[in-house]
Amino acid sequence: MLQSKQPIYLALIHYPVMGRQGETISTSITTFDIHDIARTCRTYGIKKYFIVTPIESQQWLAGRIIDHWQKGVGAEYNPSRKEAFEIIKLCHSLDEVCSSIQNEVGKVPKLIGTSAKLKESAISYEKLKSDFLEQDRPQLLLFGTGWGMAEELLAKSDAVLMPIGQPEYNHLSVRAAVAIILDRLSRN
Amino acid sequence: MLQSKQPIYLALIHYPVMGRQGETISTSITTFDIHDIARTCRTYGIKKYFIVTPIESQQWLAGRIIDHWQKGVGAEYNPSRKEAFEIIKLCHSLDEVCSSIQNEVGKVPKLIGTSAKLKESAISYEKLKSDFLEQDRPQLLLFGTGWGMAEELLAKSDAVLMPIGQPEYNHLSVRAAVAIILDRLSRN
Repeated sequence: MLQSKQPIYLALIHYPVMGRQGETISTSITTFDIHDIARTCRTYGIKKYFIVTPIESQQWLAGRIIDHWQKGVGAEYNPSRKEAFEIIKLCHSLDEVCSSIQNEVGKVPKLIGTSAKLKESAISYEKLKSDFLEQDRPQLLLFGTGWGMAEELLAKSDAVLMPIGQPEYNHLSVRAAVAIILDRLSRN
Repeated sequence: MLQSKQPIYLALIHYPVMGRQGETISTSITTFDIHDIARTCRTYGIKKYFIVTPIESQQWLAGRIIDHWQKGVGAEYNPSRKEAFEIIKLCHSLDEVCSSIQNEVGKVPKLIGTSAKLKESAISYEKLKSDFLEQDRPQLLLFGTGWGMAEELLAKSDAVLMPIGQPEYNHLSVRAAVAIILDRLSRN
């Protein structure tokens, strides 16, 4: 479990993210991102897992899947999945995520970006862990889909976390990256 | 990257595994298990990722998906995916996996089971890391699908690794579990 003074949130961004050539694109929601990341977030004590897409048809699709596991047949079939899905919230934009957190805890979250590429002034896992214990603001971990968070989002972040850092081959799925990062941030 | 004297292998078992009530079942192959786990294994330096199912139609399906990303349109579209898929090998049984490793390196692998439940005499991550550096046999990490590895497989294992250990809620996907365990085993 993450140890923190204020709640820790996580958002999976489908827009604006990078395409193959670094252009800004919107990605589709992947059903496994809903399941796997919700289960990982629930395991490590993330307060809420936001799935961010501005596209209405994508919101509708994700909403149907979430309803199935929360209220439909799936809720009875798999109660632990239901429990994981309770922390999911669909949002249209990062601004909406921040407003939602502000409504919940009365404070704007600090934004922590993630990237597979090393950014100048990237912060270490140790530093972020001690921030979790000391800071009086909630913190929001941001993960990009596609080829990663758009530069405009990284620029908006209050800090960017060090890459997981396997320089020889660095092509983890976002599902694996979330699992590894939350595990690293929760360990003594 | 994992540090080891002998190569480390990983197998994802679809039979024999446990169903909801602990009965022995065979599970279907999940396409995301092929992709995510291959990418994670390639990232951390696993020599070969074995996907184990005795069911011919499942082997055929997995083979088609693997071919698409290794030789088909996918290989050109996504070269890093092609690279990850090069370490995948389909097998019918754990015996076939062990024979394949023996043919490759001339030694029978040591079997390391994994489980979400704490087993008596489970070994720690530290112990397994030092085994990797010292032992003269290749080692094979076993991961179950469904509700986990069948007891007969755990009983066959030379050692069982400690659970990831988040006692409050312990329902990670196997994809997340593989990522977390390989990351823990690769860290100093």
